[in-house]
Amino acid sequence: MSTRERLLVVGGDAAGMSAASQAKRQRPDLEIVAFERGWHTSYSACGMPYLIGGLVERADALVARTPEQFAKQGIEARLRHEVVDIDLATRRVTVRRLDDGGEYQEPFDQLVVATGARPVAPNLPGIDSRGVHGLSILMDGIRVRELVDRTPPARAVVVGGGYIGLEVAEALLLRGIPVALVEAADQVMSTLDPDMASTVADALRDAGVDLYLNEPVVGFEAKDGVVQAVVTTQRTLPADLVVLGIGVRPNVDLARDAGLRIGPSGAIAVTDRLQTSHPGVWAAGDCVESRHIVSHQPVHIALGTVANKQGRIAGINIGGGYARFPGVAGTAITKVCDLEIARTGLNERECRALGIDYVTARVEGTSRAGYYPDAGEIAIKVLAERGSGRLLGAQITGTKNAAKRIDVFATALFAEMTVDEFQYLDLSYAPPFSPTWDTPLIAARKAADALVADQYVATPWPTRVP
Amino acid sequence: MSTRERLLVVGGDAAGMSAASQAKRQRPDLEIVAFERGWHTSYSACGMPYLIGGLVERADALVARTPEQFAKQGIEARLRHEVVDIDLATRRVTVRRLDDGGEYQEPFDQLVVATGARPVAPNLPGIDSRGVHGLSILMDGIRVRELVDRTPPARAVVVGGGYIGLEVAEALLLRGIPVALVEAADQVMSTLDPDMASTVADALRDAGVDLYLNEPVVGFEAKDGVVQAVVTTQRTLPADLVVLGIGVRPNVDLARDAGLRIGPSGAIAVTDRLQTSHPGVWAAGDCVESRHIVSHQPVHIALGTVANKQGRIAGINIGGGYARFPGVAGTAITKVCDLEIARTGLNERECRALGIDYVTARVEGTSRAGYYPDAGEIAIKVLAERGSGRLLGAQITGTKNAAKRIDVFATALFAEMTVDEFQYLDLSYAPPFSPTWDTPLIAARKAADALVADQYVATPWPTRVP
Repeated sequence: MSTRERLLVVGGDAAGMSAASQAKRQRPDLEIVAFERGWHTSYSACGMPYLIGGLVERADALVARTPEQFAKQGIEARLRHEVVDIDLATRRVTVRRLDDGGEYQEPFDQLVVATGARPVAPNLPGIDSRGVHGLSILMDGIRVRELVDRTPPARAVVVGGGYIGLEVAEALLLRGIPVALVEAADQVMSTLDPDMASTVADALRDAGVDLYLNEPVVGFEAKDGVVQAVVTTQRTLPADLVVLGIGVRPNVDLARDAGLRIGPSGAIAVTDRLQTSHPGVWAAGDCVESRHIVSHQPVHIALGTVANKQGRIAGINIGGGYARFPGVAGTAITKVCDLEIARTGLNERECRALGIDYVTARVEGTSRAGYYPDAGEIAIKVLAERGSGRLLGAQITGTKNAAKRIDVFATALFAEMTVDEFQYLDLSYAPPFSPTWDTPLIAARKAADALVADQYVATPWPTRVP
Repeated sequence: MSTRERLLVVGGDAAGMSAASQAKRQRPDLEIVAFERGWHTSYSACGMPYLIGGLVERADALVARTPEQFAKQGIEARLRHEVVDIDLATRRVTVRRLDDGGEYQEPFDQLVVATGARPVAPNLPGIDSRGVHGLSILMDGIRVRELVDRTPPARAVVVGGGYIGLEVAEALLLRGIPVALVEAADQVMSTLDPDMASTVADALRDAGVDLYLNEPVVGFEAKDGVVQAVVTTQRTLPADLVVLGIGVRPNVDLARDAGLRIGPSGAIAVTDRLQTSHPGVWAAGDCVESRHIVSHQPVHIALGTVANKQGRIAGINIGGGYARFPGVAGTAITKVCDLEIARTGLNERECRALGIDYVTARVEGTSRAGYYPDAGEIAIKVLAERGSGRLLGAQITGTKNAAKRIDVFATALFAEMTVDEFQYLDLSYAPPFSPTWDTPLIAARKAADALVADQYVATPWPTRVP
C-alpha cells in the first residue's frame, strides 16, 4: 500500500470531485480515491429535466468529467462503490461494491464527505410501483428519458411544485405528454411569496399543466406493480409516469453514524473552511449546512452552485491552502416556458419565522426601454428591514431576460446594502437592455419610500427560530 | 407676480425635469418654471439611434412627458426658451425666446442648472455643411430620421467610435445605408481596453461597416454648402450624410459666467446633494461632475441614468428632503448588431493614469450551461488592485444577454468588494441562464489567482492625475 498521504472522497459528484481536483492541484503528491455509488462522476443534476425534455440529446453532455479524465489528473474514481461505514478512530472507510456486494476497507488520512441529498419519498402506499421516479442521480434522469423515448406515457403526474417539479413538468410538455402537477401546499414554489407564486401558477396553467394545489398525495394505484394513478385527498389522477419532486433531505446517515456533528438544519455541521467536527474530515455540497448571509442562521440549501463552491474551498484547504465559504443567500432561478422566476435572500414567511420586521415593495416594468421593440415584462418584489433599511430579499418573475437581474440583489445582500443605497446603484442602461431606471432600482426605491412612510412597530417575538 | 417660493429650471430634459417633478411632489406649494431651448421636454436622447434606425417609429415615443403633462402637475415648461444669463446676486435669469429673439427676466428663489452637454464639434473646414449632424437634442435625431426617410443617403460616414458612433452606425446599416466609421484613435470604444475593443471592431466589420482606425478627420468637402465627403489624414470618404459622435463636453458656459465653481473635470462642481457653490442653486445631469466610486476623483460622465438620478436627488433636496448622490462607477452598455458590450469601473489606461497598480484576468465562457441549446458567448475582463485585491473594474463582450451581467460588477464596486470575495457570490444558476460557475465568478477567481501569483511591485508615481 502507498505511503503517500491519502485523501478519500465519499461521493463523486460536484462537491466531492471539485474537492478532489482542487486538492490535487494544490498538492500533486496526494493519493486520491473517490467512491461513487452511481454510474457517473461530476454530472449536472440540474440538467436532468432538459435531458428528459429532449433539449439535451445525450446524457454524456451532462457529465463534466468522466473517471477516465480524472484518472489522467491522477485521481481514481470508483463507480458503483458505496461507502457504508466511516470509522473515525481507525481512519478507515468500509466500501461496498454494488455490482457484486463485496466489501472492503480503505484507510485515509483526510476524508471528504460529499454524500449529497436524497429526494423526499414519503412512505405512501404504492410509491415503489414501477413508473414512479425520483430524480436523484443521473441514472434516474436517463431512465425517465429512455422511458419517454421508448413508450411515451399517455399521462404524467408530477408531485411537488418546487424547482424540479416545474422543470420536469415543462420537459414533459415539450415531449407532448399531458401533465398534471399536484402540490400539497396552497401555492407552487414555496421559496416565493404567495403573490409572486401565483404568477408562476398562471404560467403553468397557461402552458397546459393541470395544476392541483392544496392536494396532498395519499397514495399511488398500481396494477401488476406498475403505477396507474396518483391519489390525492381530492381525486384520483390517472398516470403511467409519476415524477416526484417533493424536495430533498441531506444524506447524513453515514456521517451521523460515524459520529460527525449534525447541525440544527439536519445537515452536517461544518466550519467556514468546510471542516466537520473531526480533524481532517471535511464535508461539502448538498449534505452540509451553510450559514445564511441574511439571517446568519444555519440552513440546508441543496444547489449545484453551492456544491461546486464548497467542493473547491474544501479542496483548497485540504491541499494546505486557505479559503472560506462566505455563506448562501438562497439565490435560485428557473423558468416555466416563457416565464422566468428568480429569488434571493429571505421571503415574507422566512422573515416572520425569524422575527425580522420588514416592509415590502412590488414594481412592474419592462426589461427594455418601453419604446424599444420586443420588451419583456418584469415584476420585482423587494423586502427591506424596518429600522435599518437593510435589503432582506428579492423575488422576480418576468420574460426575456428579466430574471437574471436577481444577481444584483444577491450581490447587494452580501454587501449588506440598504435599499436606500441600492436605489442609486450605477447599473447599466441602454434602450435595448433596460429602462433608464432599471426595475430593480425602482423596486428598491419603493421599499425605501415604504420604510419612511411606515411606523416602526416591532413584532414581539420570533414565531419560530428555524 | 406670485409671492410663492419660486424654482426655476434651466434645461428641460432628464435632470431638470426630474428635479422639477420631485421638488413639486415634496412641496406642492412651489412655483416651478422650466426653460428648454429645444422643442421637447424629458426625452430619451439615448433613443435617437433607434429612431434613426426605424426600430422606434415616432419621435413621440421617446418623450417621457410633454409640457402639457407637466402643466397638469403644476409645472410650467417653456420650450424654445433659452436662459442666456444667471445673475446670482439679484437671483434673476435672463431668458431669450428663440422664436422671436425677445428677452426677459425672471426672478428665482431656487435654481436648477441642467444645461446638459454638447457634442464636440471641432473647428474643421466644412463642418457646418448641410448633411453634417451631431446628435444633441431630440430635434437632431428627428432631422436625421426625416432625411433618411425622405432621401436615403447613398453613403454615410460616422465620425467617432464611441457609444453614439456605434449605435448610429448600426442604425444606418439597419436602414440599408452603406456606412463608414472613422476614428482618430487606434481603437473604437475608448472606455474599453484595446483587447476588448478589438472584438467590437471585428463585430463592426462583420456587420458591414467600413472601419478606419488611426484616422483623424481633417475636414469635410462640400458642394453648394452640402457635404460631399469626409477627409481623413489617409483618405477621402464620399458621404452625403455625416454623423458626428466624437464625444460631449459639459455645457457650462452659463454656469461659469454666473460665477458658479467649475470642477477639475471641466463640469460644474456640486456637493453630494447636488448643490453648487452658491446657496439655493443646484445642478444636475450632463453638466455636472460626479465622484467616481473607485478612483474617488471627480469625473464627467454624461449618461441618462446619472442625469435621472441626480435630477431626482436635487429635487428631493430642493423640496426640503435629504438625499445624496453616491457617485458613478462609469457603467455603460451598448450593442452592435448581435454583439453586446458593457463596462464598469476603471480600465487599464485609467488605472495607469491614477497610479493604481492592478492585475487583469480575462475569461471566455457561455451565457448558459454549455449543453443547453442556443448558448451565447461571453468574454469578461476583470481588473483588481494589487495588494488590497479590490475589484477595480470589468469589461464584457458577448451575445444573447451576456452584457447585463456587468451590473453585478457595478454593485460590487459600490460595496468595495475584493475579487476574492466576489468569486464566491451566490449568483443564480440554472442551465437556461448560466453555467454552474457563471463567468463573472470565474473571471474574479482568475484575478484573485493572479494576485496571489503576482509579486507586488508598486509603480513609482501616477503618470497623470486626471
